[in-house]
Amino acid sequence: MCDHCGCGQPEDHHHTHDTSGRTIELQQDVLAHDRQHAEALRRRLAELDARLVNVIGSPGCGKTALLVELIGKLAGRRRSIVVEGDLATTNDAERIGATGAPVYQVQTGTACHLSAHDVEHGLEHLPLERGDLVLVENVGNLVCPSMFDVGETLRIVCLSVTEGTDKPQKYPVAFREAQLALITKSDLLPHVDFDLEASLGMIRDIHPDATTIVTSARDGSGLEELATQLLAMWP
Amino acid sequence: MCDHCGCGQPEDHHHTHDTSGRTIELQQDVLAHDRQHAEALRRRLAELDARLVNVIGSPGCGKTALLVELIGKLAGRRRSIVVEGDLATTNDAERIGATGAPVYQVQTGTACHLSAHDVEHGLEHLPLERGDLVLVENVGNLVCPSMFDVGETLRIVCLSVTEGTDKPQKYPVAFREAQLALITKSDLLPHVDFDLEASLGMIRDIHPDATTIVTSARDGSGLEELATQLLAMWP
Repeated sequence: MCDHCGCGQPEDHHHTHDTSGRTIELQQDVLAHDRQHAEALRRRLAELDARLVNVIGSPGCGKTALLVELIGKLAGRRRSIVVEGDLATTNDAERIGATGAPVYQVQTGTACHLSAHDVEHGLEHLPLERGDLVLVENVGNLVCPSMFDVGETLRIVCLSVTEGTDKPQKYPVAFREAQLALITKSDLLPHVDFDLEASLGMIRDIHPDATTIVTSARDGSGLEELATQLLAMWP
Repeated sequence: MCDHCGCGQPEDHHHTHDTSGRTIELQQDVLAHDRQHAEALRRRLAELDARLVNVIGSPGCGKTALLVELIGKLAGRRRSIVVEGDLATTNDAERIGATGAPVYQVQTGTACHLSAHDVEHGLEHLPLERGDLVLVENVGNLVCPSMFDVGETLRIVCLSVTEGTDKPQKYPVAFREAQLALITKSDLLPHVDFDLEASLGMIRDIHPDATTIVTSARDGSGLEELATQLLAMWP
């Protein structure tokens, strides 16, 4: 149900509001609400010289492990605070919390993505300070989160080498809408059938301006380059 | 957009139909349409002594590779025909087609799941015969497809060992709604941090009656057991 405007309609809907005795069909969908929330959040963060990174990828593609290592890499250079999204459990927040970074877990129930409103709600529970890096780990899903702006400065899409070479072609929206594409779990390349060059070529075909980095949270590959990319969001 | 009743409203909506000069709000959601399509398809397949299996799992969890091997295992015992679901490409249909099985690829565009109507549409392009096994490979997504009955006799959820131990807890609906849970890519167990017993325990906690099979399309583990389970759908 739509919890953005309190109208009680389903998430993806046309409103029918009864105003002054006449029923008018507003034909206003939830995406307009989301855009308003996202723009407001982006303005608020800009005023604080903070940046927000929206991390998207399939279940189990290694988003949390990557964030844990990244937070360590950035320590002393930029403070990270984290909003975690999952249908259920606080497992990821516990893993992030072990780094010492402030973290809040949003549990979406059956919802397949985080909304800007979810992220605003998460930030209410976090000590957001001037200059912070807000890392948002979206629900594990390579489809739906691609359609929702959560107020980000930068969107990252992750693709693990265990998922297969052709995923950029099969989930093109996710790669078209992300400025930075990470290949994750590169340490597993010797054990899987993944054609790295072919997959990177598919990403470039879909999004010629995207930056790509090959990473491994296990052996540290690409993490310094990733940290550099994120720090470059501040001029 | 709703392509079930042709009303042109968004997928997940309340209808506002103008009937005989009065605007009435039917408050009828798309799930009711889906249920009607699913029930009709299930009846039609039952009349043909056919069975339909809905295969759900994350992107890259090995659904296609598993189906390719399964079709071979069943050859001579039960004919398989396949409906493939993806946002884009016909890659999976080509892999299935190489086995000789009749296959049709549904391309969903931006839609995150297959509907019963999609499957009906796919079957229009396939030579469905008495006693067939209809294998439906859903869009790679561990969230949304769980909420949609596509007319199946049996639902399978796949979890690859590369995705991590705790996925049943984090995506509980997928495991609650599937009668058969497959652990896939078990050949990669030596290379990943996956606690097989713990993950199977989580599945049992969520769905005590579920059958679980540990499989690998690469080394053939569990495939005969899977074939046996599917053949048991015919008394």
